[in-house]
Amino acid sequence: MSDLPQRIIITEEGPREGFQIEPGPIRTEDKIRFIDLLSNTGLSRIQVCSFVSPRLVPGWADADAVVAGFTPNDSVDYTALWFNQRGIDRALTFQNKLTLEGSVHLSASEPFSISNLNRDRATNLEKMREQTKAHVSADIPTHHITLMAAFGCNFAGDISPEQVVATVRDGVDAGLAAGTSITSVSLCDTMGWANPSLIQRVIGAVRDAFPTLQVELHLHDTRGLGIANAHAGLQLGVTHFDTAAGGLGGCPFAKHKGAPGNIATEELVLLAEELGIHTGVDLDALIDAGQFAESIVGHTLPSATLKGGSLNSLRQNVS
Amino acid sequence: MSDLPQRIIITEEGPREGFQIEPGPIRTEDKIRFIDLLSNTGLSRIQVCSFVSPRLVPGWADADAVVAGFTPNDSVDYTALWFNQRGIDRALTFQNKLTLEGSVHLSASEPFSISNLNRDRATNLEKMREQTKAHVSADIPTHHITLMAAFGCNFAGDISPEQVVATVRDGVDAGLAAGTSITSVSLCDTMGWANPSLIQRVIGAVRDAFPTLQVELHLHDTRGLGIANAHAGLQLGVTHFDTAAGGLGGCPFAKHKGAPGNIATEELVLLAEELGIHTGVDLDALIDAGQFAESIVGHTLPSATLKGGSLNSLRQNVS
Repeated sequence: MSDLPQRIIITEEGPREGFQIEPGPIRTEDKIRFIDLLSNTGLSRIQVCSFVSPRLVPGWADADAVVAGFTPNDSVDYTALWFNQRGIDRALTFQNKLTLEGSVHLSASEPFSISNLNRDRATNLEKMREQTKAHVSADIPTHHITLMAAFGCNFAGDISPEQVVATVRDGVDAGLAAGTSITSVSLCDTMGWANPSLIQRVIGAVRDAFPTLQVELHLHDTRGLGIANAHAGLQLGVTHFDTAAGGLGGCPFAKHKGAPGNIATEELVLLAEELGIHTGVDLDALIDAGQFAESIVGHTLPSATLKGGSLNSLRQNVS
Repeated sequence: MSDLPQRIIITEEGPREGFQIEPGPIRTEDKIRFIDLLSNTGLSRIQVCSFVSPRLVPGWADADAVVAGFTPNDSVDYTALWFNQRGIDRALTFQNKLTLEGSVHLSASEPFSISNLNRDRATNLEKMREQTKAHVSADIPTHHITLMAAFGCNFAGDISPEQVVATVRDGVDAGLAAGTSITSVSLCDTMGWANPSLIQRVIGAVRDAFPTLQVELHLHDTRGLGIANAHAGLQLGVTHFDTAAGGLGGCPFAKHKGAPGNIATEELVLLAEELGIHTGVDLDALIDAGQFAESIVGHTLPSATLKGGSLNSLRQNVS
């Protein structure tokens, strides 16, 4: 376990990811309150919204109001997601509150690209080249690849490490063509296909091909292996993870209703801190925020730590 | 990962563990149907009931009827739990269907022993010596220690590997005093305190002190680290695990309502099979049984795989 990092950086995606799958409308003020609670947990990165078409994603029709409404904490970087020029333009109006970062969104799976992005991989790559150029023109730093379906795909089955490496190469080249250098890639287990051995193989292959690229993990807990996979990543020295408080978000690709989506922030924080890895996060404050999220959505969230509670609070009672 | 075993043996504890925490009465015929479904999944060991006082555990007042009612599969060992002579006597009447195995139940934590077993560790050890003698007299093989709170305790805080080793020694000595040899020990993470590094340290300490003892794991998922802990066990070559289909059972020691109890059988089977470790279990049949359990208890169970579905069924659709 000698490669365990000393500290990790968690990007909290609960506010952005968490509410768009919920059937009922979530009140703007509740989204804002949730972000404000998360801002005071010690998290250093929070993704607060998607600037997407209100027609396609009605749950984010209030993205601008949410960003305008939350109270920023100086020690937190607030990020947002967008997929087109209109989104870029909306994000640019909030440069005072948001840390704008572009990403090259790619899928390792052809059928997932078609079903989820509504275009094949070649067409998407062309679109990403254009968007990266638009980012460069707008002075939005774009040094990152978000690589979906990196460990398997409900529509394509297993994804080979070679497919992942080829997709990273596409992204790196798209960056170069747009005049920017790619320095990091998030490998996303979008549909919950990873296992700890596969994490090792895929990260190993990407690092072999791109030794200077920082490999980050965006894991889903669709089938319950998410935290074991995160641990495999920690053992390989991975320092950047995306998570969602409470395990907010759910999975649209599960066989049966109710499967988890992103790994729960509480569970990763607990794992890391118990292993002696610094997260900067106050787990009890995070659990309070997660319980507020549960009250907003009106149903139980997947995070076990949210219910089990922190160990440090019990240790304090004992001593 | 060279120590991964080729195959593992899972003891399914869902029927025994799963229904006693449920608020509503579970119909005897539903318990029987659940056991019959599990019997045809490829599981080789199923713990079907507790022979305990109906006054203390009303949910198991029908233990005798359940055992009388299920249809045994020749390739499955059916086990049961008991805590006193009355329980032994009830179990002995079902020697035709049950594989009777005694266990020395010990707690590594003094306050857990007092709060959960209603007696301190010394008194409990004396009681276990007597019960082991009773097992020997009744020709019930007793070669196993069930060691509770082996990784931490809500009432005592952290538990040191030395406390675990000392407790194993108590159990081995109790066996010898009763004229039987202890050959295996289940380390139980009763309140969900373990993490992968701690699993390594505690198993290492027990193996150092008792090199010929088989170390088994009974893990809880109270805070979401259960499958990562199971993976740590697999990497150390652990071959015997206790689990509960669907994650049935829940946790009476959680801070907030709804925390998981035993790790979910589906999740361990998925993890093992994806790592190339043979379990003998048909995951899709197991998911069907888990969904039946969910319908019995009338609420969502913690297992993520139960909702996410198997990967092999998706692979088959692709090819």
